[in-house]
Amino acid sequence: MSRSTHSGLSCAAAIVGIGATEYSKNSGRSEMQLATEAVTAALADAGLSATEVDGFATFTIDNNLEIEVARNIGAGDLRFFGRVGYGGGGACAPMLQAAMAVATGVAEVVVCYRAMNERSEYRFGSPSVFSAQIAGSDAALKSLHTVHGLRTPPAMIALLARRYMHEYGVTSEDFGRVAVAARRHAANNPAAWFYGKPITLADHQASRMIADPLRLLDCCQETDGAAAVVITSAERASHLPHRPALIRAAAQGASVGMLSLTNYYVPDICDALEVSLVARQLYEMAKVGPRDIQVAILYDHFTSSVLMQLEACGFCGRGEAPDYIKDGGIQIGGHLPVNTNGGQLGEGYVHGMNGIVEAVRQIRGSSINQITDVENVLVTASLSAPSSGMILSVSGAK
Amino acid sequence: MSRSTHSGLSCAAAIVGIGATEYSKNSGRSEMQLATEAVTAALADAGLSATEVDGFATFTIDNNLEIEVARNIGAGDLRFFGRVGYGGGGACAPMLQAAMAVATGVAEVVVCYRAMNERSEYRFGSPSVFSAQIAGSDAALKSLHTVHGLRTPPAMIALLARRYMHEYGVTSEDFGRVAVAARRHAANNPAAWFYGKPITLADHQASRMIADPLRLLDCCQETDGAAAVVITSAERASHLPHRPALIRAAAQGASVGMLSLTNYYVPDICDALEVSLVARQLYEMAKVGPRDIQVAILYDHFTSSVLMQLEACGFCGRGEAPDYIKDGGIQIGGHLPVNTNGGQLGEGYVHGMNGIVEAVRQIRGSSINQITDVENVLVTASLSAPSSGMILSVSGAK
Repeated sequence: MSRSTHSGLSCAAAIVGIGATEYSKNSGRSEMQLATEAVTAALADAGLSATEVDGFATFTIDNNLEIEVARNIGAGDLRFFGRVGYGGGGACAPMLQAAMAVATGVAEVVVCYRAMNERSEYRFGSPSVFSAQIAGSDAALKSLHTVHGLRTPPAMIALLARRYMHEYGVTSEDFGRVAVAARRHAANNPAAWFYGKPITLADHQASRMIADPLRLLDCCQETDGAAAVVITSAERASHLPHRPALIRAAAQGASVGMLSLTNYYVPDICDALEVSLVARQLYEMAKVGPRDIQVAILYDHFTSSVLMQLEACGFCGRGEAPDYIKDGGIQIGGHLPVNTNGGQLGEGYVHGMNGIVEAVRQIRGSSINQITDVENVLVTASLSAPSSGMILSVSGAK
Repeated sequence: MSRSTHSGLSCAAAIVGIGATEYSKNSGRSEMQLATEAVTAALADAGLSATEVDGFATFTIDNNLEIEVARNIGAGDLRFFGRVGYGGGGACAPMLQAAMAVATGVAEVVVCYRAMNERSEYRFGSPSVFSAQIAGSDAALKSLHTVHGLRTPPAMIALLARRYMHEYGVTSEDFGRVAVAARRHAANNPAAWFYGKPITLADHQASRMIADPLRLLDCCQETDGAAAVVITSAERASHLPHRPALIRAAAQGASVGMLSLTNYYVPDICDALEVSLVARQLYEMAKVGPRDIQVAILYDHFTSSVLMQLEACGFCGRGEAPDYIKDGGIQIGGHLPVNTNGGQLGEGYVHGMNGIVEAVRQIRGSSINQITDVENVLVTASLSAPSSGMILSVSGAK
């Protein structure tokens, strides 16, 4: 049976408001306060009143209940509230849920948020906290890996990175070029934690090993902060202050038999099948291809994942990503600027939500590292996890 | 701005398969095993192969990861996986998400499941377990109530029940009639825990007090078990073995400023505003009213909530539910048979999923307590929580 076209979803909804707190290592306030600030800012940006909010979508691991956020911002009756699991793999999925709710008329103004004191309140990347996050049926499987020292995301992803190096002759310097690009972008961005702090490849090479072959500067930050977006119908979006970022495509993907973060029991562990599954759906739904993308927001929990995603999304062939990025290819001015906000390596780590805010800015033309003539921005989520993605666009299919 | 009609959702999808394990007090196997059995049974019932499953929706509190269930049943690539919070308030919301995914073409075959060893593995209603379930921003608010002894669902709901008695002269016998009806239905149902065990009003009155005014026989069971349903497009449903249960309407609702289970800070605590918010949306979307409903599956965590929901859904006026049910009104043969499977009081408690399975049977004409000429079945979720509901139908709007 052939797949239906996603005609019901493409360009039905748009992101009309964006908001964020500062990204820090110690916010000094509660996660609920952060969520409320980001959501309030996003609504102000959208030119919408809190009383018009009738839906929410967020991550299962977000600690802020929808009804508490609703009360704190002064929202109206809620008609939709959904959540998505798998941490950073879910990065684009709240927006998929919001677009579905808007497209079907279930809700009219849906807010997506992610707020966390990841650094000051708990350390997301530490073994105890990370293990404690994993509940239920996942615990048994995770325990099989924990005893081998795979207790944190960098340790789990390191196996993929090492295999990728082995398979295609990729080097630590190749990973380093991703970090250099991110930090170059962050250096221009006053909202980035690493504003004004570019790095060189030598800095990367000198940084300490976290989980071989991943060095400190291959790893995203642990950040306190929140980001939020407001989604409504494309029709209504056209009457609001900012140029709408049309959700031209949104998708989730989990490939057959995959495990989350420990997806080692597949023919090729650096295949990122879940990312190519998402990308295929996005291109089909949006009726565009990799050549139609001017900016990409690729989930940069670790530098190696950016290279694998460039390949999984079809920007280059398997094993070709190091060449693709070599001469500043993913920097501003390159053939595909990636993570122009500085990414999670450079700006802050809030499970991808800050990257989505940046994608909207690129569509609006308001990024600090604005690319000219942006039509379509591809956004991805974590690889080696049930994943998700979006294509945000200035306009729909011609 | 007027609400859009939900033309995108009504009758776009249908429940085409139902499955469940036995409902017991000690399943003797893992929750994952229960989930897998129920889902496998639902797919067999639907006449669909596991390889065709490309989506899942469940509760945030379900311990079984979608990707683990997928692997265990042999599912294909997944294109949708969503979750809904608020425990029993979410009872109908996975189906809403599934219908949205199908309606927008995001997924084609979506499975919804709920599996738990609520009795043998943990006791959901015990103070320590219940408090431990509540994470994040809810914890602070819950702690304000915990110190006053409000540590379990019956204690929290008891305040609503007592106020309802005070306000409308409702008696414990009125609550008891709900239990008698449920147990009469369960007594006919071999799948019910209380099969062959009807009760009298005297039995109810003699049962011990759990949280005044709620007696043992006012409380739903703690159950080990699982239930699952399969959802696909209405078009495809018409080619499958069973009469499709069309999702004529599905909705969520959280009223302004509400708290979950401790929704005491509103003008009338037995108003069930969140249920009437859901019901209004359902009737609007389905283009039917209370008189068009032949069977209702009302969330019966506690008997008192069934009475309040009859009122909130417009089957009778405020304070009139005791009269409405007095002469067997919600029993088979009455004007509105309710919970014909025996409900969560009589069959088993799996956060409402077993009631949804029963609603499908009533549409098919295959219930053990089958009502004649069923056109529309209303299903609700927990009150005093962000809630949800559905109308399942034989056919769409005329």
